[in-house]
Amino acid sequence: MKEKNLWIRDHWDEKRGSSITVMASGMLAKRKTRFQTIEIYDTEGCGRVMMIDGIIMLTESDEFAYHEMITHPAMHVHPDPKQVLVIGGGDGGAVREILKHNVDEVHLCEIDADVISISKEFFPSIACGLCDPRVKIFTDDGAEFINNKAGYYDVILVDSTDPVGPAEVLFREPFYRAMNNALTENGIASTQSEGIYYDLDTIIQLFSFTRKIFPVVEYYYTMVPTYPSGTIGFSFCSKKLHPLRDRADKGIKGLKYYNDSIHNSAFVLPEFARMALKT
Amino acid sequence: MKEKNLWIRDHWDEKRGSSITVMASGMLAKRKTRFQTIEIYDTEGCGRVMMIDGIIMLTESDEFAYHEMITHPAMHVHPDPKQVLVIGGGDGGAVREILKHNVDEVHLCEIDADVISISKEFFPSIACGLCDPRVKIFTDDGAEFINNKAGYYDVILVDSTDPVGPAEVLFREPFYRAMNNALTENGIASTQSEGIYYDLDTIIQLFSFTRKIFPVVEYYYTMVPTYPSGTIGFSFCSKKLHPLRDRADKGIKGLKYYNDSIHNSAFVLPEFARMALKT
Repeated sequence: MKEKNLWIRDHWDEKRGSSITVMASGMLAKRKTRFQTIEIYDTEGCGRVMMIDGIIMLTESDEFAYHEMITHPAMHVHPDPKQVLVIGGGDGGAVREILKHNVDEVHLCEIDADVISISKEFFPSIACGLCDPRVKIFTDDGAEFINNKAGYYDVILVDSTDPVGPAEVLFREPFYRAMNNALTENGIASTQSEGIYYDLDTIIQLFSFTRKIFPVVEYYYTMVPTYPSGTIGFSFCSKKLHPLRDRADKGIKGLKYYNDSIHNSAFVLPEFARMALKT
Repeated sequence: MKEKNLWIRDHWDEKRGSSITVMASGMLAKRKTRFQTIEIYDTEGCGRVMMIDGIIMLTESDEFAYHEMITHPAMHVHPDPKQVLVIGGGDGGAVREILKHNVDEVHLCEIDADVISISKEFFPSIACGLCDPRVKIFTDDGAEFINNKAGYYDVILVDSTDPVGPAEVLFREPFYRAMNNALTENGIASTQSEGIYYDLDTIIQLFSFTRKIFPVVEYYYTMVPTYPSGTIGFSFCSKKLHPLRDRADKGIKGLKYYNDSIHNSAFVLPEFARMALKT
């Protein structure tokens, strides 16, 4: 299968000082879908890699750090999450983590059906939960999907791409208002919110309206080597429960990144980011 | 000054899945010294960049995250550090941070005098402390330098390159025994100890002997976008004081990364690293 060695470089723009490159041994697939271009590479250092529109979406080697951390903080703060929605996340990684909890129903709303089919084909260890009977898949625009779901979800995870292209609407105020409406009384949304080093302006912009919509909004982060700057974070948007005061142990074993101490420390920001985001 | 745009790629080996690239606008200097090759680049995204033997040593944009975090944890745990030694660190970044504390004397022992002269020339905001009257510079091998300094230093910082070439000896047991001997009764050494994602084996190897030498050994980390995987850490090796129980506020203002909460959270490791390093 090894065709040749090639460097694949993550998308770079002037805002981002550095860019990640990965040494690939071959391209496994390239598909132009209705929404974007998906490429799958084989690499020795990172396992298989998915790129969307030239941006590294995930690698087999470090996806656990992202998927565990988008999922488990909210799922450990909500006392009994039964109805959970994932917007985006067609690779199935967040769904896999949600299914480690005692949930009744997981809805996955992914705009691009090809992301799901490609993930099932090339990333079975990530997409493994998508065939679970508790999971229902919708191919739809997440921003429209939640409009008629008032008070339905205990937890919503927004596992989106960057705020360009199809995901742009997921970084806007109307979408956060709709999520607030779609959540139950104790509801929590955790949303992919970029990194403190290269996208602090995006986070500040998000917080300028999310803090008007949700009583509790806190940024927390994880470390993912193949994402720009090596770190990416999430907005923890909660209607009532507090991420540090209301966590309960759920007895989940076998995680590689998340633990009870990381839960708290992930909300502690370097001084420059703390100052920029403080209320 | 802008010559052309060129991608400069950090050194890559098979152990490391990904590599950092930086877009440079020109090379400012290249010097082959007795020990290594130093290159200085101008970049728009990261400011000036120093590479040594093809590895990014520092960039103006994120050096604060490294230099504050190699320095301030030990300096906040020791109640009154007066005599401080930096081994390596010829750029002066650690010295600059040390001088924010009420110290009597800082010794800098850098094996390569050219690192110091180049830093003074191209990185004045980093090397600014090297001319302070409290600082004494030695051009010497750090492993030999500390052999006749019994009980002299309150804090030792080892700001070294990776464990290949001149810095290899700084990752070995005899050097840690010599440091233990060179420290005062309450002494603390913080040593550059690579990152949990790509160098966990190096950290495990270090801990296999440092924990026999020092009563307290804990790993802590910082996030530096232009280092491989975006994170790098330090061994906190202490003869008596504990990093979490013995910290005191020192009233230092104007830091960009370090704060009292980061001090504690930096010692909290993702589960895979915690398990690998637990006693």
